Amino acid sequence: MANSKYDYHNAKELATESRFNEDTYLIVRIDGEKFHKFCPEHNFHKPNDKRGLDLMVEAAKCLMREFKGHIPLAYGHSDEFSFMIRSTSNLLSRRIQKLTSVLTSVFGAHYNDNFDKFFLYRQKHSARFDARIKEYANCKTVIEYFRWRQVDCHVNNLYNTTLHALTGRYRRHELIPCDNMDSSDRKLFENGSGDGKLYELRITPITEWIPDKSKFFSSKDATDKLSGTVSSQKQDIMFLDYKINYNNELEQFKKGTVVVDTNNDNLDSIKHFNLDLINDYSFWIKHQHIFNDSALIQQ
Amino acid sequence: MANSKYDYHNAKELATESRFNEDTYLIVRIDGEKFHKFCPEHNFHKPNDKRGLDLMVEAAKCLMREFKGHIPLAYGHSDEFSFMIRSTSNLLSRRIQKLTSVLTSVFGAHYNDNFDKFFLYRQKHSARFDARIKEYANCKTVIEYFRWRQVDCHVNNLYNTTLHALTGRYRRHELIPCDNMDSSDRKLFENGSGDGKLYELRITPITEWIPDKSKFFSSKDATDKLSGTVSSQKQDIMFLDYKINYNNELEQFKKGTVVVDTNNDNLDSIKHFNLDLINDYSFWIKHQHIFNDSALIQQ
Amino acid sequence: MANSKYDYHNAKELATESRFNEDTYLIVRIDGEKFHKFCPEHNFHKPNDKRGLDLMVEAAKCLMREFKGHIPLAYGHSDEFSFMIRSTSNLLSRRIQKLTSVLTSVFGAHYNDNFDKFFLYRQKHSARFDARIKEYANCKTVIEYFRWRQVDCHVNNLYNTTLHALTGRYRRHELIPCDNMDSSDRKLFENGSGDGKLYELRITPITEWIPDKSKFFSSKDATDKLSGTVSSQKQDIMFLDYKINYNNELEQFKKGTVVVDTNNDNLDSIKHFNLDLINDYSFWIKHQHIFNDSALIQQ
Amino acid sequence: MANSKYDYHNAKELATESRFNEDTYLIVRIDGEKFHKFCPEHNFHKPNDKRGLDLMVEAAKCLMREFKGHIPLAYGHSDEFSFMIRSTSNLLSRRIQKLTSVLTSVFGAHYNDNFDKFFLYRQKHSARFDARIKEYANCKTVIEYFRWRQVDCHVNNLYNTTLHALTGRYRRHELIPCDNMDSSDRKLFENGSGDGKLYELRITPITEWIPDKSKFFSSKDATDKLSGTVSSQKQDIMFLDYKINYNNELEQFKKGTVVVDTNNDNLDSIKHFNLDLINDYSFWIKHQHIFNDSALIQQ
Repeated sequence: MANSKYDYHNAKELATESRFNEDTYLIVRIDGEKFHKFCPEHNFHKPNDKRGLDLMVEAAKCLMREFKGHIPLAYGHSDEFSFMIRSTSNLLSRRIQKLTSVLTSVFGAHYNDNFDKFFLYRQKHSARFDARIKEYANCKTVIEYFRWRQVDCHVNNLYNTTLHALTGRYRRHELIPCDNMDSSDRKLFENGSGDGKLYELRITPITEWIPDKSKFFSSKDATDKLSGTVSSQKQDIMFLDYKINYNNELEQFKKGTVVVDTNNDNLDSIKHFNLDLINDYSFWIKHQHIFNDSALIQQ
Repeated sequence: MANSKYDYHNAKELATESRFNEDTYLIVRIDGEKFHKFCPEHNFHKPNDKRGLDLMVEAAKCLMREFKGHIPLAYGHSDEFSFMIRSTSNLLSRRIQKLTSVLTSVFGAHYNDNFDKFFLYRQKHSARFDARIKEYANCKTVIEYFRWRQVDCHVNNLYNTTLHALTGRYRRHELIPCDNMDSSDRKLFENGSGDGKLYELRITPITEWIPDKSKFFSSKDATDKLSGTVSSQKQDIMFLDYKINYNNELEQFKKGTVVVDTNNDNLDSIKHFNLDLINDYSFWIKHQHIFNDSALIQQ
Repeated sequence: MANSKYDYHNAKELATESRFNEDTYLIVRIDGEKFHKFCPEHNFHKPNDKRGLDLMVEAAKCLMREFKGHIPLAYGHSDEFSFMIRSTSNLLSRRIQKLTSVLTSVFGAHYNDNFDKFFLYRQKHSARFDARIKEYANCKTVIEYFRWRQVDCHVNNLYNTTLHALTGRYRRHELIPCDNMDSSDRKLFENGSGDGKLYELRITPITEWIPDKSKFFSSKDATDKLSGTVSSQKQDIMFLDYKINYNNELEQFKKGTVVVDTNNDNLDSIKHFNLDLINDYSFWIKHQHIFNDSALIQQ
Repeated sequence: MANSKYDYHNAKELATESRFNEDTYLIVRIDGEKFHKFCPEHNFHKPNDKRGLDLMVEAAKCLMREFKGHIPLAYGHSDEFSFMIRSTSNLLSRRIQKLTSVLTSVFGAHYNDNFDKFFLYRQKHSARFDARIKEYANCKTVIEYFRWRQVDCHVNNLYNTTLHALTGRYRRHELIPCDNMDSSDRKLFENGSGDGKLYELRITPITEWIPDKSKFFSSKDATDKLSGTVSSQKQDIMFLDYKINYNNELEQFKKGTVVVDTNNDNLDSIKHFNLDLINDYSFWIKHQHIFNDSALIQQ
């Protein structure tokens, strides 16, 4: 509209506004902000709450639909989700602050707007998130990034599962095959293998099969007991002392969830899976369409 | 927890993470994202909706309380709010992406969580925001920034008010002095001068005093009519053709709202005003405690 | 050594020091600073001075030897030279300011230290340079960059050659095959094809075959005459009016000089060529060892 | 000139080019690159070589004259010099890489072009420098920066002087008042107090008054002896064991050299001094014209 002597401010803002380089892959990692408060306020199960994890996946899928064509891949576990923006994308002109703020805000909006669908009660206050974005030059370094996050999922989940066995707060999640599909009175789940079958979720507190409360420890003592243990020792503690076979934990808990846009033509094309990104190259080879330099994927 | 061969990623993220310089004032401007859709979806009044503006102020105050001690000053109008972070603040270690994402998310959470208090109905979906942050070296340039935003408020409000007079969508807002304070059945308002008096809000559509619909134009024709007009011409159109005295518009609409932390000791110290930041230095002199270099404020 | 209360300055400097991302190719372009003054002060020939161009190539090779293993490719023409740093290089910790300043300083040192070898007289004062560095994500964009610079070489050289035909300042450079290799009294040159043969350089001012001075124009008039002409028109002006066949110009002038480290084992491996980077892929395929993602080179 | 399909590269370069904020003071610190080699190659005296220090000051003054009006203050010691660019300066459009490269190149050019005036022999090869630039928001932080560098000068000089007493490489520099001004056969010096008087320089190796070579140590042993000593212990070692009164060392060695543009009207206005910036505010008050926010200078 009208000009004023203050209009030079627009030029000043542009002059120091930073953009990402062209042709790089951008990975945005969105994290729950103060979820150590938000989770207990909303009674999240320990060590994992399938409702909360499914809500994260739903928010991720909504965001990917909203920016259809720009974000072909995402991966998340716990209270974090990482999104890969195509190297050819010019989303929000690759402006650093615009990407950081808008993606955080859109993810949070979808999380909060869908909360009651998963938890079946209204949230007390909106969840908050933060974000960081970094450039990756090629598909090799992108793949390394996602493997890093899956290793992080594995390490953290093993630790937390053992910890909450020790504290007595552990709850077993089981997916029960469901022959009778017409049962409209139960919420049914997929198992994340992409086979389309539906399952019932059964949740059992550890105290059902370990009734002796003297077997459990305070958080402090449990943390001390775990200090310095390696993977196999944690699995032994769970199996021998608490009759928990870590192998039977849900794949979603052990592997996190990858979301991929399998096809560019429709919105249903955005699928999620709980599979191995670390040792198995087949995922990357099958979905190399998400990269512009897939020749670099080494089997 | 456990180390892995992927741990170098942490170092990589740190190595390219940007921070703002020390000792600079940071100004964050948070803007409504796609509010041209959000406002009609939620039936905001044209050209101003006091409920929406008051909600912005409330969200700003909540954010300032949450980051008490870091943000002594804010100013907003329309769907934007600018926050000044103290030059001595080390909020979120001055990390650019962390500040951008967290402040957007926190502001949005307060906006969405308070929506129904102001609009008296539940929002259809969460509002989204974006943010940009820029450094300012001294109080002179900070003051120039806030003047720029207030000039922007003035220019835009004058334009929009005239435009919606022409389209017939204008609604007059009046604050009526309220002698009878005990009336618990009405929502009462302050007038933004800080005098503590309460007022009733009366809203009247333009069609009440201009019943002849032939006097109104389509948006396209109204925009064409306004093209190239200066301030005085817009005021003349309003006054002569539509009996609107722009001087009687609410100060909140004409000047926007400044929020200042008047005192560092309690949460009630965060006050809002609708006053002149452009020509009148008294605000800056009175509140020079918000700066570390107030010796530079020139009368 | 001793600590002091000022030591926090070190931390402050580190906190805001920027680094380039890992895994990207970095291209540094070093340009002569104020060479429009430096060239006439040192009597450079117009439109090209083979001594000056050879000195640029020598300085480039010295720099590449000094940072052996980090910079496998360079290209230059006129008073500029671009260097590609490997995507795997961690030269100077990829610190932006350190790379910018050190590479400029080292290139300038080699240029100034070698000046008298090429010009056979001592320079009046040191030449100065500036530099800019940008990240490139993959070999495709690196190749595009070098093509861009060679197109720039072509466009500028065609223009300048025609301009100096018109002004009468043109000097023909010819490389004369030299049968008698033992002639120690003449400086001999390679022709940039890499065949190892030596040539004598013959320089002839245009006035030798166009003695009529009325055929020449002032700089201003020559510039006006060239304004709006396309390539073929410039070639016609040279050929028809000034008997200059642009095809016979030295390849070094028309194509610039590419410097490549052909082999990582010895210092002699750094070779230069005057060849086509724009239309001919054979250079890139032959030297794909300089890239880590050569699978992307498309024939 | 002609357009080409590669012209988008210009836009790409601009899009990711970084600039410093407006209104901040910029401090550039230029350091000798590999001076641990350059100094012995050119036989610099230990622990200080007045010729080398004076050459640094000369290069600094030349640079300040070349960018007259932009750089009112500089300070240097050893092989480093820091320059303050005015907060109002738009030198080189405040482009980070341009400033970094050009200032390094210009300083180096003046250093190398003046080398033989100070050392009376031609340098073997050009000296190289690097640079870093950082923003400072106000005069208080600028003053802290320069104090930090002077503390660094003091700490390093005390250490190096003691070290080279121990190794027997120390050479005493004395300025002898010179009554007879017409002596054209000797190089005369100012003493850095700005009083305009001229002095003769007398250099005496430590072996003249400590002829017993058994009193000296290898570099390794000298370093070990100094390890963990505080200031007073170093002064005691010098005075008691080697008859060196540190108070009598040249002010230039102990305090470094500050260069200030005392007046904006002529080139002679650029003066240098060896004075206290740490404890004495009088320098800053006298030269507050170099700042735009001098109201903040606190006595």
